[in-house]
Amino acid sequence: MNTEQNERIKCLIIGSGPSGYTAAIYTARADLKPVLYTGLLIGGQLTKTSDVENYPGYPDGIMGPQMMEGFHKQAARMGTDLRIGFVSEVDFSQSPYKVTIDEKKVVLADSVIIATGATPKWLGLESEQQYAGHGVSACATCDGYFFKGEDVAIVGAGDTAAEEALHLSKLCRKVYMLVRKSTFRASKTMVHRVENTPNIEVKFNVEVKEILGDGLKVNSLQLFNNITLNESKLDVTGIFLAIGHRPNTEVFKTWIDTDEVGYIQTKDCTTKTNVPGVFCCGDAQDARYRQAVTAAGSGCMAALDCERYLSALEHGATE
Amino acid sequence: MNTEQNERIKCLIIGSGPSGYTAAIYTARADLKPVLYTGLLIGGQLTKTSDVENYPGYPDGIMGPQMMEGFHKQAARMGTDLRIGFVSEVDFSQSPYKVTIDEKKVVLADSVIIATGATPKWLGLESEQQYAGHGVSACATCDGYFFKGEDVAIVGAGDTAAEEALHLSKLCRKVYMLVRKSTFRASKTMVHRVENTPNIEVKFNVEVKEILGDGLKVNSLQLFNNITLNESKLDVTGIFLAIGHRPNTEVFKTWIDTDEVGYIQTKDCTTKTNVPGVFCCGDAQDARYRQAVTAAGSGCMAALDCERYLSALEHGATE
Repeated sequence: MNTEQNERIKCLIIGSGPSGYTAAIYTARADLKPVLYTGLLIGGQLTKTSDVENYPGYPDGIMGPQMMEGFHKQAARMGTDLRIGFVSEVDFSQSPYKVTIDEKKVVLADSVIIATGATPKWLGLESEQQYAGHGVSACATCDGYFFKGEDVAIVGAGDTAAEEALHLSKLCRKVYMLVRKSTFRASKTMVHRVENTPNIEVKFNVEVKEILGDGLKVNSLQLFNNITLNESKLDVTGIFLAIGHRPNTEVFKTWIDTDEVGYIQTKDCTTKTNVPGVFCCGDAQDARYRQAVTAAGSGCMAALDCERYLSALEHGATE
Repeated sequence: MNTEQNERIKCLIIGSGPSGYTAAIYTARADLKPVLYTGLLIGGQLTKTSDVENYPGYPDGIMGPQMMEGFHKQAARMGTDLRIGFVSEVDFSQSPYKVTIDEKKVVLADSVIIATGATPKWLGLESEQQYAGHGVSACATCDGYFFKGEDVAIVGAGDTAAEEALHLSKLCRKVYMLVRKSTFRASKTMVHRVENTPNIEVKFNVEVKEILGDGLKVNSLQLFNNITLNESKLDVTGIFLAIGHRPNTEVFKTWIDTDEVGYIQTKDCTTKTNVPGVFCCGDAQDARYRQAVTAAGSGCMAALDCERYLSALEHGATE
């Protein structure tokens, strides 16, 4: 490996979603001279959405990509050193921590804030990306409201899918829950609630073959029954994916404790990980709430936890 | 008591700071038909500040009161029933919970979100209110940055005061820490750090007699030594109060578990309290971070926890 330059920095932030940028705003204002590497998807998941109505601060709503541009600008204005690049390797065996960027540059960091987020799983259809933010959503809590009074489908069979189906059932006229297998993966309790909700219709052994629309918005789905092999069309204006998320934490796993899915485990409702001086915020550690504003809140927490850590470090303590 | 009307509601939100309004935005979008009572200080602590630079979403900063107007407007647009009034009594002995507003109206609520915040303690000087947001601040983390390169004072003797003094020492030229007694209340570790920071000067037995300025901004303090009884003038452009906060939770204490200071105790890093269906978010439960964005994040968490609770309740479960 070519370690062209071993730059020493105080505070390294990895990721550029709401949590990363918020950590940057706070650490920059505390004069920790943060360096933020954006990762491959600059701006994070929100750049894949359209209207955002639930982030407090935009009374009339805002577009996801525009919102993240604002966060970026704010982090820059506070003095964050914002850089494009991804973390390809880390060595957290001793402080300062060694982080390799783009498989070549090595950074030595006194503290690290992991804000790499999570990636929703998609079906893998081309039409899905075409209509993302225009009828296709990976977050019913975020986007369900836009489909008030309409007919929608949700794909998934687990507890999150069941919970999101219930959320949608309050807002939409009809909710089709599409389950690929012949049974749910969700808990009995959640299945019971879904089955007792009149406007949810569960369809088992069903897969989405294509998402159809007028070029601008979704208007129906081409379904496929994997037992009968029959195809059918379902008229819906929205399709929600609830088939899981993959936390973007692979590169840290040798050093940082995660749960079985890969979510980083933080301690005592703080952002501290098992490695002192390494903090985690946002969706990389949150399987429960996963909202832009909760991510931003935890980014602030990480910055404050980090500031306390560095203050202790400077005075010879190891916490 | 005149219970002129026993209104039954699904979701009652108490308080109108960042956490209350965010809980409102989320519960309204989930069609829980929230009713929010503002409390006595409409908009909460932020209405007592001026510039806010660290809330992510305002790249060029915003004034605190204007920010809270935006939150209010957003909660209203999503369909929250926003009402002026304060909670004078609660009875959480059984669901639906009985909440008395303005000592007369009784509301029966299936779920309650407590977002009543905390009140910083002030010195009790008239000049302090005159210059609030113009040199007087109760949050060094929020406002220290505005005093970059300047001389400031911080009043307090505990761990928070010490921590905020250290924060200010990175930004300001000189930090005077004014301690009323002859000793610190802070832990040994924190005292050690303060004492080893060259640009922090601790003054014991000192009280602030008056905050002086040009009518627009602070320029000095009239100090008083409570041992020698000497008065002196200290040239500073900012004074930070770190003499404690009082969580606004008195009215809930019969039913809801708090710590010894009065902060409401939430469970397992959620917003759940010891009473099922009663949630708490924002500064009323947070002695550690206390930022607008962390409050907003926890308001969202409360809304999602509440939605899950009501969904379970509706299907006959009690969680």
